[in-house]
Amino acid sequence: MQKKAVILLSGGLDSITVLAMAQAQGYACYTLSFDYGQRHNAELHAAAKIAADYGVVEHKIIRLDLGTIGGSALTDSDIAVPQTLEIGIPVTYVPARNTVFLSLALGWAEVLHAQNIFIGVNAVDYSGYPDCRPEFIAAFETMANLATKVSVEGAAFKIHTPLINLSKAQIIEQGTALGVDYRRTVSCYSANDDGEACGSCDACRLRQTGFLEAKIPDVTRYAI
Amino acid sequence: MQKKAVILLSGGLDSITVLAMAQAQGYACYTLSFDYGQRHNAELHAAAKIAADYGVVEHKIIRLDLGTIGGSALTDSDIAVPQTLEIGIPVTYVPARNTVFLSLALGWAEVLHAQNIFIGVNAVDYSGYPDCRPEFIAAFETMANLATKVSVEGAAFKIHTPLINLSKAQIIEQGTALGVDYRRTVSCYSANDDGEACGSCDACRLRQTGFLEAKIPDVTRYAI
Repeated sequence: MQKKAVILLSGGLDSITVLAMAQAQGYACYTLSFDYGQRHNAELHAAAKIAADYGVVEHKIIRLDLGTIGGSALTDSDIAVPQTLEIGIPVTYVPARNTVFLSLALGWAEVLHAQNIFIGVNAVDYSGYPDCRPEFIAAFETMANLATKVSVEGAAFKIHTPLINLSKAQIIEQGTALGVDYRRTVSCYSANDDGEACGSCDACRLRQTGFLEAKIPDVTRYAI
Repeated sequence: MQKKAVILLSGGLDSITVLAMAQAQGYACYTLSFDYGQRHNAELHAAAKIAADYGVVEHKIIRLDLGTIGGSALTDSDIAVPQTLEIGIPVTYVPARNTVFLSLALGWAEVLHAQNIFIGVNAVDYSGYPDCRPEFIAAFETMANLATKVSVEGAAFKIHTPLINLSKAQIIEQGTALGVDYRRTVSCYSANDDGEACGSCDACRLRQTGFLEAKIPDVTRYAI
């Protein structure tokens, strides 16, 4: 039987690459997106289109109002998205976001009897987010293997982070080799309804630098 | 400054006891409930009333559709709530529920600059739920201390589980000593809109046995 994997799919450059990698490795792919009160829905639309393009077994969107908690420029309209690269952990950090997302992926994986979860975290260009570090992922995996009914019955969950040690340029190179169409993806924190990028936020800058370093034409659709 | 704590408050017998304990220990209490697609809202109403009674600093309800994931009698109306005690992990187990709840509590705690989270898990009468075991809680705490911005800055989160080694009777005894009014609480999986209990599900039976063993009158409001 084909191995099943739950893949966190934001609709961005990293997660489409992870999906392409998981599919290339022969997994039956179940993609998961979150409607968590982010500033725009362009990335959710991108995720749904990408899931359809790749013919995943099932694409699920979980609604979860992280804005209730607040504390981030991505979910709180009172905090401005910065237009310059910040030092340290940026205001776009959403408290415990990857912990929450992985927890819900774990729940769905348990229901599906899937033992594999893929997440496109990156410790190189990770913008200072603590929940993108390898030591966090390892601790989550340990916890997951104590948390669930499946694990009590002897199976084990594996959290796959194929991008964790890659630069943005390497991610783009590997994705391009797998035929990924990055035009489909939305990375920008302030994308418009059509998914066009601002070109100046942290996420846009990281992405631009990646294409530049990979010497691959930047196919991003910009609003300007 | 008074120490802050986030307390998971379901509106049941265990969580009200935890709230009373945290308050007795001098914490400024922030209570958190989840509208997660459970079968009835009686426990959410009970939680809100309890939070008001105890004069908590803030009571928050996060909406989160765990029914999207399925896999439990508590969120999936196609799976019947059993009327007899089950062997092993019961169908009322919600996949990764405590992991998800604790993750969201962690996010809120981070925003509040609170370093304490209280949860009323119990490893004695835990009905076979894997995410109520001490080893799970310890692993979650380790993970939490790698997951967050606060932890990078040197602070540490503590997950408090004051009920983990108590029998239901001991919980009722300790709560009664702290003046807890258990009439306020809803434990039943099939409570009606008024919060009256069925008297026959797993949760009702555990609760009845607790009052009996504690030799304290059972003040639960039953529908029959």
